[in-house]
Amino acid sequence: VSDHDEIRDLITGWTAAVRDHDLDAVTAQHDPDIVMFDVPPPYRGVRGIDEYRESWGPFFEWLRQGAVFEIDELDVVAGTDVAFAYALLRCGTPADFDATPDIRLRITIGLRKREGRWVVTHEHHSFPMA
Amino acid sequence: VSDHDEIRDLITGWTAAVRDHDLDAVTAQHDPDIVMFDVPPPYRGVRGIDEYRESWGPFFEWLRQGAVFEIDELDVVAGTDVAFAYALLRCGTPADFDATPDIRLRITIGLRKREGRWVVTHEHHSFPMA
Repeated sequence: VSDHDEIRDLITGWTAAVRDHDLDAVTAQHDPDIVMFDVPPPYRGVRGIDEYRESWGPFFEWLRQGAVFEIDELDVVAGTDVAFAYALLRCGTPADFDATPDIRLRITIGLRKREGRWVVTHEHHSFPMA
Repeated sequence: VSDHDEIRDLITGWTAAVRDHDLDAVTAQHDPDIVMFDVPPPYRGVRGIDEYRESWGPFFEWLRQGAVFEIDELDVVAGTDVAFAYALLRCGTPADFDATPDIRLRITIGLRKREGRWVVTHEHHSFPMA
């Protein structure tokens, strides 16, 4: 499997784990020192795997109310030892898409290769400001 | 100069070029096919160097009204041929900082090394949603 395909599978599997509300699978390939710029505050971001794990609780609650979290478009740039990827996701409730059909969540992911394995060390999630 | 320091200088110089409203310097190390997830819509992002250049006009106008654009914190992860960096910036007017002192712009930047030179191929700019 190429690095490109391995990272694509990692990200696709991560979105499936989010949909399953499976926190251990969501965090399985994440660095202890991950820095995540999340959709909600704080401005400084979510720092470290404990804060990262905690951040998913409210999101899983929201998904249970009928929201989707599906990759629409994914680009992977894989180097020898560092990689990044950026994606557009359908992320919202049916009411959100009725109001704004083209709404998309933007995600950028930064990865490092450690002992032959790709690890997520940075995530940036956002919606544009209207 | 290490790759890490070269990328740090590239990003620091880019923010200085933004403050100088120097569009050629702002875009000097950017890929023709850059994909930028910007603070404003559209959701699909700004695609290609022409759209990227156009996106700076309204921002320069806003800076002229007294807004700042200064790096507060910058982390660079440089690999052999791919790199990414993420930063928090003070970006706002004096009135913005009076209202919300801890407000920060979050930026993630993706780079590739081409013919010995680092080139920006992706940017993601956002504010959190309150």
